[in-house]
Amino acid sequence: MDTKISLATRLSCSKLHFVVESTEHKKSHFLIDKMMWNGNRSDDVVVIHITSVLRTKEMKLNLYSELVKVLTVNPGVRKEDIFVTIVDNTPENWSFGKGLAQLST
Amino acid sequence: MDTKISLATRLSCSKLHFVVESTEHKKSHFLIDKMMWNGNRSDDVVVIHITSVLRTKEMKLNLYSELVKVLTVNPGVRKEDIFVTIVDNTPENWSFGKGLAQLST
Amino acid sequence: MDTKISLATRLSCSKLHFVVESTEHKKSHFLIDKMMWNGNRSDDVVVIHITSVLRTKEMKLNLYSELVKVLTVNPGVRKEDIFVTIVDNTPENWSFGKGLAQLST
Repeated sequence: MDTKISLATRLSCSKLHFVVESTEHKKSHFLIDKMMWNGNRSDDVVVIHITSVLRTKEMKLNLYSELVKVLTVNPGVRKEDIFVTIVDNTPENWSFGKGLAQLST
Repeated sequence: MDTKISLATRLSCSKLHFVVESTEHKKSHFLIDKMMWNGNRSDDVVVIHITSVLRTKEMKLNLYSELVKVLTVNPGVRKEDIFVTIVDNTPENWSFGKGLAQLST
Repeated sequence: MDTKISLATRLSCSKLHFVVESTEHKKSHFLIDKMMWNGNRSDDVVVIHITSVLRTKEMKLNLYSELVKVLTVNPGVRKEDIFVTIVDNTPENWSFGKGLAQLST
């Protein structure tokens, strides 16, 4: 399964564009309640911060389930360890280069 | 004083759930105006980024004062060095694991 | 040209206040589609995340073009490599120190 195509489908867009910046935290620099919301988390929690133009609630729920489907296969994260939070913004809040606001009309 | 209980009280919630990811910045990778807003900041500024479902203004103001109360005691940050910014989001913007949106109804 | 004065002009404020926290990503920890939106990006992409109280669309567009003008000169980033995203928040969402909400009235 191609992760990008799969996620794009769930997000109802023909192409999926994203930038990934990842940081590994030393244990002393990371704190999470392993049982919050009956989480049953391990030491290998992945916290995914997403900034996105506003999507529908349905698209967000689909994204969560798709992220679990994809990441539990590769690289093999436990589904309990996938923590996601989204911050919504607007089309004019993106510049993809050259000083332009490509999503803004 | 238990930090979590104290902050939970100020946020008007029975249990306080949070995830902390911290990063130490090299001096060359961090820039702040020490006097902005008459800040009188030192080299040991702590910048706290909070993503949270929407809280009332009163709860936010209480949180700032409680953070200062707690962090000046342990680990002993100067109150001038505690810089906080909050980004609000919505209940459907959180997945605490398993691909579910636990706050969304 | 003084970068801060130049950006302040574009943001229509007399003084520009900002905090910069920068992170260098290892190649294995960073992923971007180099051609997304006909980007023609290099390996030296700079992704700028801005959290700001709400500004007008015009101020945001001016900021993108000014960032390109400034950063292509010093430190000499290609204009195609300047990627910006903004998250808006509110005045009560900032505490510049001492537990106060200096922007909130």
